[in-house]
Amino acid sequence: MENVIKVTVWNEYLKEQQEPDVASIYPDGLHKAIAAFLNRDSGISAGVSIISDPEQGLSEAVLDATDVLVWWGHRYHGDVQDHLVQRVVDHVRRGMGIIFLHSAHESKPMKSLLGTSGYLGWREAGEKCRVWAAAPAHPIAQGIPGQFVIEHEEMYSEPFGVPEPDATVFISWFEGGNVFRSGLCYQREYGRIFYFQPGHETYPAYHQPVIQQVITNAVKWAKPVTRIALRNCPQMEALEKIGG
Amino acid sequence: MENVIKVTVWNEYLKEQQEPDVASIYPDGLHKAIAAFLNRDSGISAGVSIISDPEQGLSEAVLDATDVLVWWGHRYHGDVQDHLVQRVVDHVRRGMGIIFLHSAHESKPMKSLLGTSGYLGWREAGEKCRVWAAAPAHPIAQGIPGQFVIEHEEMYSEPFGVPEPDATVFISWFEGGNVFRSGLCYQREYGRIFYFQPGHETYPAYHQPVIQQVITNAVKWAKPVTRIALRNCPQMEALEKIGG
Amino acid sequence: MENVIKVTVWNEYLKEQQEPDVASIYPDGLHKAIAAFLNRDSGISAGVSIISDPEQGLSEAVLDATDVLVWWGHRYHGDVQDHLVQRVVDHVRRGMGIIFLHSAHESKPMKSLLGTSGYLGWREAGEKCRVWAAAPAHPIAQGIPGQFVIEHEEMYSEPFGVPEPDATVFISWFEGGNVFRSGLCYQREYGRIFYFQPGHETYPAYHQPVIQQVITNAVKWAKPVTRIALRNCPQMEALEKIGG
Amino acid sequence: MENVIKVTVWNEYLKEQQEPDVASIYPDGLHKAIAAFLNRDSGISAGVSIISDPEQGLSEAVLDATDVLVWWGHRYHGDVQDHLVQRVVDHVRRGMGIIFLHSAHESKPMKSLLGTSGYLGWREAGEKCRVWAAAPAHPIAQGIPGQFVIEHEEMYSEPFGVPEPDATVFISWFEGGNVFRSGLCYQREYGRIFYFQPGHETYPAYHQPVIQQVITNAVKWAKPVTRIALRNCPQMEALEKIGG
Repeated sequence: MENVIKVTVWNEYLKEQQEPDVASIYPDGLHKAIAAFLNRDSGISAGVSIISDPEQGLSEAVLDATDVLVWWGHRYHGDVQDHLVQRVVDHVRRGMGIIFLHSAHESKPMKSLLGTSGYLGWREAGEKCRVWAAAPAHPIAQGIPGQFVIEHEEMYSEPFGVPEPDATVFISWFEGGNVFRSGLCYQREYGRIFYFQPGHETYPAYHQPVIQQVITNAVKWAKPVTRIALRNCPQMEALEKIGG
Repeated sequence: MENVIKVTVWNEYLKEQQEPDVASIYPDGLHKAIAAFLNRDSGISAGVSIISDPEQGLSEAVLDATDVLVWWGHRYHGDVQDHLVQRVVDHVRRGMGIIFLHSAHESKPMKSLLGTSGYLGWREAGEKCRVWAAAPAHPIAQGIPGQFVIEHEEMYSEPFGVPEPDATVFISWFEGGNVFRSGLCYQREYGRIFYFQPGHETYPAYHQPVIQQVITNAVKWAKPVTRIALRNCPQMEALEKIGG
Repeated sequence: MENVIKVTVWNEYLKEQQEPDVASIYPDGLHKAIAAFLNRDSGISAGVSIISDPEQGLSEAVLDATDVLVWWGHRYHGDVQDHLVQRVVDHVRRGMGIIFLHSAHESKPMKSLLGTSGYLGWREAGEKCRVWAAAPAHPIAQGIPGQFVIEHEEMYSEPFGVPEPDATVFISWFEGGNVFRSGLCYQREYGRIFYFQPGHETYPAYHQPVIQQVITNAVKWAKPVTRIALRNCPQMEALEKIGG
Repeated sequence: MENVIKVTVWNEYLKEQQEPDVASIYPDGLHKAIAAFLNRDSGISAGVSIISDPEQGLSEAVLDATDVLVWWGHRYHGDVQDHLVQRVVDHVRRGMGIIFLHSAHESKPMKSLLGTSGYLGWREAGEKCRVWAAAPAHPIAQGIPGQFVIEHEEMYSEPFGVPEPDATVFISWFEGGNVFRSGLCYQREYGRIFYFQPGHETYPAYHQPVIQQVITNAVKWAKPVTRIALRNCPQMEALEKIGG
């Protein structure tokens, strides 16, 4: 059991997500749907946490017990408390993996880790999206076809206000004429970061097996190589004689 | 005059390009069309060179007098002699800029400089292409709209077998459902490299002002910061006492 | 005059910097010493701003009138107000260049823009430092020798907790046995970022011509390519018919 | 057994390496010393191949049966036949990992894969070298101390003529005053590449446990994620109606 990857799927899960149009797709919330498919992989143990939990679901106990945090948020980005954002960021810097889904591009943790605004264009027209694997050799693309279709998705468009990534794993084509780098990898000190675009709450993207596979792969890629304790800049003794 | 950027536009310009369907679009060859629009910029002085010139248009004299080489080739990649490829590569490593256009993705100099195969998917269907500026802050994207249309272009598709670039300047949307990273920057030692996808010989892409602007911008970006002579790995004296 | 680069050199300039050991080296403060050598370049117009100024020297008026901000801070990182940090970060994302000097590795703006902690090892032993140009073709290295000596500098050591940079311009050798990536470039949306290690307040690094040249070069490299207004994620109309 | 990583250690192993000063350190050649310590890891099965073997030790059969190729060469770089270099490069592009040791910086396969000259400064003075882990979170740095000493090594110095790496894992300090990026990662299509500086033939670097650990880690990092067959650019059918 010691190699099982411990995942926490964080979600706002406030009233909009509990209303009929979303609840008909994700009756128990997106977080539980995501945790459920992750738990079908014997190498993963996924739990959930939501913004109305104590410490907004981001206690030290929760994060200490999390190898990879999956983040879904949209309308309540601004409500996540700054000291909790800083706590998440610190855990990533010290090794916890993090996967940002869909509208998390504007979440405080993603903006804090990437240093950018997450700017993009958008359109909610239920249009067709084709996701292309631009880096087929990347671990996150294994078992994923060269191209797959999401029948209805919110459109996100370039230019995407993020740093040039370490790896451009997926690029999406949208029926209405737009393109978007939809799967991107970053490293921030000890922590690995993956952004993945699909998952508007009114469409069933997280029920689609190929998308489940991408997120499962991403969890495995983002698990900590090693994890370190809090640290301050150390004063170091000289190794060689100075002023000899 | 000393700050004028000296450009050489290299082209195969063999019989296919002189036949009616191409010649009707580029009566004097693609190279002369490209040189002509570059020469409208007072900061650029562009000449041409073709595969049937002495030393295949790639003599030391030509390259020494070139700040930025623009490369268009397609059917005769294999005919470019290896020692001339090496000469081009050496000039880039020592500071000469190079711009690879369209099917130059499989040219020997591009493969030698990037280390990859230039693998991609393709389709010749005269379809619509939308080019998106993914890096609107990049010098090559200045004055270029967020998105522009090429009415008819050969389709190139991801996955594109190139290294993760230093900058992803453009990404293209194709009518038939594909995407492609169509404007990419690299650095190899002292030389700057830009790959730009548009320009199949049977369509008039190089007559389109926005494409002319991209290539003009790219020439200015790729001009040498500094240029060095041939060099071998130097033996260096110790700066500090060893074994003290 | 319109092409002159407007620089603001920001400094804490609180009591420690006004005490004899620092004041003997920088009688008017490090900020004024830096601005003075920048102003010797006819292409640069440099002013100063300090933490005790209104809005901590970071008013919208100051930043709007700044092409490149140079940041020196050490003991008072924590005192810079968060909304002003956010203002600086927003200006960088929208095109303002920024140069972080020495202990700015732990400043709030640098950590916010890079997403990392700025972790490093240090030693204050007045030891010799040799700065090597690892990217001699980079604009910031022009006119700088392959290696130069700083006779006495605070030591900073790897591992340096920053993202893999876009360019590793300088790497430093320290007498006591350490190495440090001492000149690093990043881009965050429209803004360019340069970190440069030399400049502990009790040593005269900023009086050394080669260091003045590096910072002058960095200002020219970091000046905005273009600068944009505040922006939110735009809703975009479809360019192609959806659901045809 | 099916998960065992198959390694081939390639070496020139010509007369210089069989002479007393080298043979006293590596009696059976560097290749056999390297294979021997790799074989102590139960997850690795390492064989050897040398330039005097049929097809210079680089037959299709050898490469097909190799997950990760380790390359040591120095005086006979020029003797490796170009079609065999191309074969190695093709295998890397299709997924085989490759580790370049020491003077392999100027080998034909490394120059072909990186696109650069491998330029560097050097000095053979048997000086002390300190290797710093600049990316302690990288898989190749696991179990390696923050800094370790090689008592006697050939000096290699910046500037190092290679592309900006995907990861700067190690940076070395040399007693004589130089620095060098001594452990660098790259990806070329499906293949992973690691360059590691230690290993001059007249010093016992490959007998040092920490260096054995780095190379063992590197083999595990470089093993193929997936491996593909030879491929040409495919013509692709349209997925969407064109000219609708």
